[in-house]
Amino acid sequence: MVDNGFLRLHEVRIPRTNMLMRFAQVDRDGNFSKPPHDKIGYGTMVYVRSTIIGGAGKYLAYVITIAIRYSIVRRQFPPNSNPKGAEVQIIDYLTQQHKLFPYLAATYVMHFAGLQVMRMYHDNLKRISQGDMSQMAELHAVTAGLKSLTTEISIEGIEIARKSLGGHGFSKFSGVIDVLVDWIPSQTYEGENTVLYLQVASHIVKLMFGRKSQSLAPSSGFSYLFSQNDSKISPESTSKDFNQLGFLLSCFQHRSRFVIESVCAEFSSIMKSGKTFEETYNDLAVDLVRMAKCHSLYVLLAEFMKAIEQISDQQIRGMMADLFSMFACFMMERDAGDFLEDGFLSSAQIQLCRRTGRRLLRKIRPQALVLVDAWDFPDYLLNSALGAHDGHVYENLYKWAKKSPLNESDVADGVKQYLLPLMKKGQEKCGIQGIRARL
Amino acid sequence: MVDNGFLRLHEVRIPRTNMLMRFAQVDRDGNFSKPPHDKIGYGTMVYVRSTIIGGAGKYLAYVITIAIRYSIVRRQFPPNSNPKGAEVQIIDYLTQQHKLFPYLAATYVMHFAGLQVMRMYHDNLKRISQGDMSQMAELHAVTAGLKSLTTEISIEGIEIARKSLGGHGFSKFSGVIDVLVDWIPSQTYEGENTVLYLQVASHIVKLMFGRKSQSLAPSSGFSYLFSQNDSKISPESTSKDFNQLGFLLSCFQHRSRFVIESVCAEFSSIMKSGKTFEETYNDLAVDLVRMAKCHSLYVLLAEFMKAIEQISDQQIRGMMADLFSMFACFMMERDAGDFLEDGFLSSAQIQLCRRTGRRLLRKIRPQALVLVDAWDFPDYLLNSALGAHDGHVYENLYKWAKKSPLNESDVADGVKQYLLPLMKKGQEKCGIQGIRARL
Repeated sequence: MVDNGFLRLHEVRIPRTNMLMRFAQVDRDGNFSKPPHDKIGYGTMVYVRSTIIGGAGKYLAYVITIAIRYSIVRRQFPPNSNPKGAEVQIIDYLTQQHKLFPYLAATYVMHFAGLQVMRMYHDNLKRISQGDMSQMAELHAVTAGLKSLTTEISIEGIEIARKSLGGHGFSKFSGVIDVLVDWIPSQTYEGENTVLYLQVASHIVKLMFGRKSQSLAPSSGFSYLFSQNDSKISPESTSKDFNQLGFLLSCFQHRSRFVIESVCAEFSSIMKSGKTFEETYNDLAVDLVRMAKCHSLYVLLAEFMKAIEQISDQQIRGMMADLFSMFACFMMERDAGDFLEDGFLSSAQIQLCRRTGRRLLRKIRPQALVLVDAWDFPDYLLNSALGAHDGHVYENLYKWAKKSPLNESDVADGVKQYLLPLMKKGQEKCGIQGIRARL
Repeated sequence: MVDNGFLRLHEVRIPRTNMLMRFAQVDRDGNFSKPPHDKIGYGTMVYVRSTIIGGAGKYLAYVITIAIRYSIVRRQFPPNSNPKGAEVQIIDYLTQQHKLFPYLAATYVMHFAGLQVMRMYHDNLKRISQGDMSQMAELHAVTAGLKSLTTEISIEGIEIARKSLGGHGFSKFSGVIDVLVDWIPSQTYEGENTVLYLQVASHIVKLMFGRKSQSLAPSSGFSYLFSQNDSKISPESTSKDFNQLGFLLSCFQHRSRFVIESVCAEFSSIMKSGKTFEETYNDLAVDLVRMAKCHSLYVLLAEFMKAIEQISDQQIRGMMADLFSMFACFMMERDAGDFLEDGFLSSAQIQLCRRTGRRLLRKIRPQALVLVDAWDFPDYLLNSALGAHDGHVYENLYKWAKKSPLNESDVADGVKQYLLPLMKKGQEKCGIQGIRARL
């Protein structure tokens, strides 16, 4: 956004050949020919949105790297059991883990989901070149939903991580502010998030009412909405189940289907009462966004799970599975109402989910440093005194402060010339001697 | 936070009389005498936190004023039913109302709760001057919890309102960025929010286990935890009930009590398994914060309701009651899991809550402008081209842009001298004539 610029065009003729007409065309006689598919003009936007999904993981990872490294170095309060012992590393406080680890998990969730979507994009490009437009609408819906959801989660995580640094979170030297300012517009550009969620919702509404479902490919990310396999009540589950990727994913699938079916049922009933489609759509817009979010979260988890299944190294696969479960429990706890509302999960199961989430925080703790180091960001990129690889937080802060031009001399320029005379005049006026005498 | 400054003290002697010893004292012989109450040193902090509660309402109101005025002026898309008619004011989209109106309500909730807490503060000052320290701990807990909750809600609302402006939300001319930068540290200063929530939780744990409840004044904000009046299941309710302040407040009271009792029961059971108090505290820290938030939200609503009851003008009282209900429904929908978990509310009731919330958005719509104008912020304070009182958004943007020194001349300084020669050189190198010929 540039505030101070503006451009006005008055009686300007733009040549036909300057119209960026790759798919739609206007010929010399002024005849318009449509592109081969309605949504083909979205091609570049779909590509950029695909890059944003993984990008959200990367931007979030910058800040999570800084916050986790700092939380390992920073200590606060000795334990009661040993008041003269070393103070506790703040990363060992469960509240700090609960702030950072779900978003540490989110960096991997979004990174891998981004790779999966990029594969879908290239697969679709191949199809288009063969004249097959069948995947366009679905790809548009997937990227629109995931672009919104991942930018939302990443900005939320960046701000939570920033706050986890305490007062240092205001410091330019933290390196966090630049990331935040760089990435925060991602929620608005390339399609504003609410508008994109509504496009996802429109696609779902079309599927649910238009009986387009018959033409869905079995591989479609929407086919679960029409499958017979959805059980209305989850099986008796133990705390072990909340570590099972398949079980967790099926919960999010059921929840998305439940919310979509509820909203679409209300849609029908409002239309039957005599309102137009457009009126109904606006009446329910808030719920349409909610339903698109639920679907997109399910897709995000499903894509991450596909990626995990492709990992051959058992140890790494296990770590990724723990991140999946922790992130899923975190999101399930937050939206517990949707899982409880139709009785799919019981209150005892929500408590299991909560406890599993907390236990996974403890389990991830020894891996936290490895998991951020694996992103392998060089120090010059993080540009952070708090999050440098060497962990010398306070030495770095001191070094960086000394580099300031203001610190080249012991007393900054202008103090003797301007400030001291002013202060002296002030002291004389207030009778500073008098104040001292009173003490 | 100043990045480039540092101060080192080496062998500096500080005189005894410079120790700011109002309550605690050290005499000439080095004897220390304790203050009359443990928490009396928090007096100023308690005062500042009290001002923050209402302040959160004011800062949020700056941005909500800008966003609501802009959303009334800004139009986007003609209705399908009349494609050549005027475009729709964006405030008439339900998604925009759902972003802004709950936070419009929050400005009043926090403003009035702030006034109530300020009364408590002054009442307590009087007591202290009479040697009565009985309210210190409770006031500390109330202000700590509300400081955290209100700064959290206000920052959340400011960012949502900023995003509701679309691309204009990045503009310095929006006036929003300055408010955000000014207020965002409020979550960290005067007691970091998580730490403060834990202090509230500690107070509650002491009450629940220490049987301190017997000494609670009947007016105490904690006495509901020990009352016999809490019904485990809410009565059959109709959609009308979700407009009833008393009913809504009792839901939040029950919910807070349910969460507190659950967490404290788990606290007992972990301690019985052999862990120390400190270990248990850290194991449950995330839930202790959750419990403190639930209590603080109940207190916030209770204080707002007390303020509403003091309003004699029936019309204003009705408007404030609508804001109360809308805000309560919004928060209840968000945390629906807590209300469903113990069966206090049924899924049908959560749906009623959701629908009542949406209906209240429509009901508030005609009052939205009056409700922001009532804050009566002068234009120079908002400093916003988008949110000025006259509503001339685009004219203001144009005027403000023209004021930029860069726009004093048609072509900015340096273009002819530096840029044009560079561009000419570039064109020659790339053979721009060749590119043109190809088109």
